Amino acid sequence: MNPISEFNFISWAQKQIGDDPSVLLPSGDDTAILKTTNKTAFTTDALVDQVHFDLQTQRPSDIGQKAINVNVSDIASMGMQPSHCVITFCVPHNLSQQKLKAIFNGMIKACRQSQLSIVGGDFTRSPKALMINVAMTGRLIKKNTQPLTRSGAKIGDSIFVTGSLGGSITGKHLRFKPRLLEVKELLKLGNPTSMIDISDGLSSELHHICKQSKVGSKIFCEQIPIANKNTNTLDNALNDGEDFELLFTADAKLTKKIDNNWTLKTKLTKIGEICHKSNGIKLFKHNQYLHKLPAKGWCH
Amino acid sequence: MNPISEFNFISWAQKQIGDDPSVLLPSGDDTAILKTTNKTAFTTDALVDQVHFDLQTQRPSDIGQKAINVNVSDIASMGMQPSHCVITFCVPHNLSQQKLKAIFNGMIKACRQSQLSIVGGDFTRSPKALMINVAMTGRLIKKNTQPLTRSGAKIGDSIFVTGSLGGSITGKHLRFKPRLLEVKELLKLGNPTSMIDISDGLSSELHHICKQSKVGSKIFCEQIPIANKNTNTLDNALNDGEDFELLFTADAKLTKKIDNNWTLKTKLTKIGEICHKSNGIKLFKHNQYLHKLPAKGWCH
Repeated sequence: MNPISEFNFISWAQKQIGDDPSVLLPSGDDTAILKTTNKTAFTTDALVDQVHFDLQTQRPSDIGQKAINVNVSDIASMGMQPSHCVITFCVPHNLSQQKLKAIFNGMIKACRQSQLSIVGGDFTRSPKALMINVAMTGRLIKKNTQPLTRSGAKIGDSIFVTGSLGGSITGKHLRFKPRLLEVKELLKLGNPTSMIDISDGLSSELHHICKQSKVGSKIFCEQIPIANKNTNTLDNALNDGEDFELLFTADAKLTKKIDNNWTLKTKLTKIGEICHKSNGIKLFKHNQYLHKLPAKGWCH
Repeated sequence: MNPISEFNFISWAQKQIGDDPSVLLPSGDDTAILKTTNKTAFTTDALVDQVHFDLQTQRPSDIGQKAINVNVSDIASMGMQPSHCVITFCVPHNLSQQKLKAIFNGMIKACRQSQLSIVGGDFTRSPKALMINVAMTGRLIKKNTQPLTRSGAKIGDSIFVTGSLGGSITGKHLRFKPRLLEVKELLKLGNPTSMIDISDGLSSELHHICKQSKVGSKIFCEQIPIANKNTNTLDNALNDGEDFELLFTADAKLTKKIDNNWTLKTKLTKIGEICHKSNGIKLFKHNQYLHKLPAKGWCH
């Protein structure tokens, strides 16, 4: 094991990063300078060893990919294309060069998959745990449109999810694919009225949309796509965190287009309908009312 | 002491932040959306307890101010105005609500002083040390100009520093004022040919400018403004880190304007001249050659 203290990480990392014409001035000055448009998404997310991952047992490259992809997922769910990021590593003295390089290579891989660039960062010591912070910007996928927010759902809209839900803790939470391609495809068909990524569990995210859109919702529990039905239950699909699927609402026109024109392999499943706020957020089975759906998702 | 676990920091923090017309969509969605122009500065810097500060002995509000101001200093030294930031807190379980609030209030104070906004963030647990990460964007102070880089110094340019240098470890490193106002005033007089902030020591930063501008320099050591001459030596002024003053180069026209028209209280001192690369980076005293100036500044 080569100790990290003898290794010029920043200089090594700069060599791993390719050119990007939207970077007017790369790292090597006091800040990077980016070519930007009139609306920019801006977000940040940190992963900490022993809180969000386990460096002893999990693949370093998976950890690096996740650090990027949690931010990509947030930007994609705004209907935006991730463009640039800056990365902070706070590194304990006993971390090996090999693991650090593998984490960074995982980040570069994730950046390539979503067509964004690393443009700068900070590298410092940590007294104990490895901490990785990523801050990311994004631009609109469709020019002259509005970002997709949590507040636009209207009564009568259909509620959709991508993929399948539940049990992400068994591995998907590290190796998930952010749904950027799916957002781009969806925007070709029309504009969802609201969208959010499912990081804290379907039930919690649904509450966010309903609260910010001032509406209620009916969820048809037999429609909810459960991942790995042998091991997961409806409760997992409703409440497990870190699925990183998308939850969105669509008006009648877009719903019809999805039914007729959706060609990607990732499934879009209608799981419910938006209704008046006074109806609350309720679970139904074969059109029979079951009970209210509390927001009891994952709490970081 | 109220334990941090019982405290909804994010909800509290959101209430502390004022409105900003350049924030099209504040935090509360998956990302913030910012109004941006065609060139954006982007940088990040982290502070870790026991590495960059000491939470036991130092004022929490000073720590918060520094976390913002190290980034402001980087953006100002590009000739840019800080505009927005996202903040990550990784918090040990024994941190008190009071200290966390005081840190955040220090951040808000620093943001107000430099007219930028906090637009989002992440809040998570840390196994041991408090870690604060700030990622910040900026826009050009003068429209349709180029950012000030490290690479534009020309033979014959004068070399200036702001304020005085050395001994920042005794307190200034926490409570320094980033030189944003000075940059704005300077840009009214003309465009420096290069600029950098002195975070790693004057000698190191001078090496950065000379290397990236492909030039050499003569430094007149009797001209270097030493802070608190009773306790600091020339060596402190040349090599101590975290001064957060500015080092810049100016052509003859701008140098004359500085001599005649500089009205701010912060001193600008000419400490040397840019010369041909083959001359290296050398220290002079009353025009007598002393020795080469090595880059031996602070190493994080």
